[in-house]
Amino acid sequence: MIDRNAPIGVFDSGVGGLTVMKEIMHQIPSEKVVYFGDTARVPYGNKSKETVTKFSRQIVHFLQTRNVKAIVVACNTASAYALDELEKEVEVPIIGVVKPGAKVAVEATRNGKIGVIATEGTISSAIYERYIKELNKNVNVIEKACPLFVPLAEEGLWRDPVTDEIARRYLTELIDIDIDTLVLGCTHYPLIRETVGKIMGEGVTLVNPAYETARELKKLLEQENLLREKEPELGDNQYQFFVSDASEKFKRFANSIIKYGILSAKTINIEEY
Amino acid sequence: MIDRNAPIGVFDSGVGGLTVMKEIMHQIPSEKVVYFGDTARVPYGNKSKETVTKFSRQIVHFLQTRNVKAIVVACNTASAYALDELEKEVEVPIIGVVKPGAKVAVEATRNGKIGVIATEGTISSAIYERYIKELNKNVNVIEKACPLFVPLAEEGLWRDPVTDEIARRYLTELIDIDIDTLVLGCTHYPLIRETVGKIMGEGVTLVNPAYETARELKKLLEQENLLREKEPELGDNQYQFFVSDASEKFKRFANSIIKYGILSAKTINIEEY
Repeated sequence: MIDRNAPIGVFDSGVGGLTVMKEIMHQIPSEKVVYFGDTARVPYGNKSKETVTKFSRQIVHFLQTRNVKAIVVACNTASAYALDELEKEVEVPIIGVVKPGAKVAVEATRNGKIGVIATEGTISSAIYERYIKELNKNVNVIEKACPLFVPLAEEGLWRDPVTDEIARRYLTELIDIDIDTLVLGCTHYPLIRETVGKIMGEGVTLVNPAYETARELKKLLEQENLLREKEPELGDNQYQFFVSDASEKFKRFANSIIKYGILSAKTINIEEY
Repeated sequence: MIDRNAPIGVFDSGVGGLTVMKEIMHQIPSEKVVYFGDTARVPYGNKSKETVTKFSRQIVHFLQTRNVKAIVVACNTASAYALDELEKEVEVPIIGVVKPGAKVAVEATRNGKIGVIATEGTISSAIYERYIKELNKNVNVIEKACPLFVPLAEEGLWRDPVTDEIARRYLTELIDIDIDTLVLGCTHYPLIRETVGKIMGEGVTLVNPAYETARELKKLLEQENLLREKEPELGDNQYQFFVSDASEKFKRFANSIIKYGILSAKTINIEEY
């Protein structure tokens, strides 16, 4: 029996998942949320399936100690590599960001050519292609790893000639193939959305899975009768943040994404879970 | 009683330390070496002192299970944050890359103005300044964190207009201050040495601590009577590589630094140590 007033658990390799957290805060504002960012072991995007699955499993164990009623894997690489395994292991509903992103992309395309940009891990898993093809097997999916986008976003170069130049190199082949829809398949990428949009041109729809993930989560909680019954009260600690490493850089960057009490994030030893 | 025929242990957050390993292979070619790269948790450069120390301690425990006769902390951030602690905890000689780098820099400068470029962790520890001032308190030390150099080097953009542009931004203030010596205070930086040299100009001496670290190691082994007595024999596994994550990216990048059997690196679960 799951407690509908329990918090939702959200996790990411670091702070990128805060872009998903933010959408959840907007779309289902009565919910309590426990966020975990694996800042000691970030990034996941260039690590193996085994490692990402092991790390994700430890985090799920941690979230279970907080009695979460549902789990959101707010990291594309972890969704790509670990979600299938995790689904078998947990009792509560668990969703990733990839399936919702794939769904919107299929709805958005008109010419049947969808581009996906993401980390090396997500791209090599080919998971976006798998989900997109399940929804419409006639769609063409062109995937491109963009490993420098995360460090550039983390350095705050959201609008910068260097980011323009790197984006041009990564995206040229997607432009040449004439895609009309582009999935921002890494939670950091919405931060450089303006640059990507400028390079791709106005005819290309940019899909941000964060928004759709929050929508899917809301729908799922409704279906399972798990939406919170009452507004959280003052002193209820509606949003709690946990990290595996409390670096200054994390705090600065987290505060540039979301303004809610990140400075009070608690550090835990994730390897113990 | 330390066995002088035992291997030397070398570790880094990832593959950057292979630049130090390479120098050891050149300068003391009879020695056996066990290398560990913490590829599951790389990078260390933007993580806290507590986390870097914990990770480094686990790695030292692992190296001790391989009965190493000496340990080289081939990572500037780990040397900066963890070496003082580790020295108290291990019986065998342990050296980092910072002190040797500081020494050469002091010997090299003529105008008494030394620049240090490194990760955010190394710079915020101010360890280069501390060691340099211990050697000569009249030297001025100007430190600058260059967080994008590691991802750019890992993407192979060693000679590229983007790396030029980023280097120009980081280094301008060091040029303005008129330093005559620049420490490459991160094991990745020798890979972009050419770019850094071009921006700094011919009058500036670039110091690569890897070379000096191997020299110091050799001297230390001599002093302690720990140099290996005989040449390793065929089938002796002179060089052994261990990693915490066996990603494809690691293999590709490692092979671009060093050519010796990296493909046969063994993966271990470092969290167990």
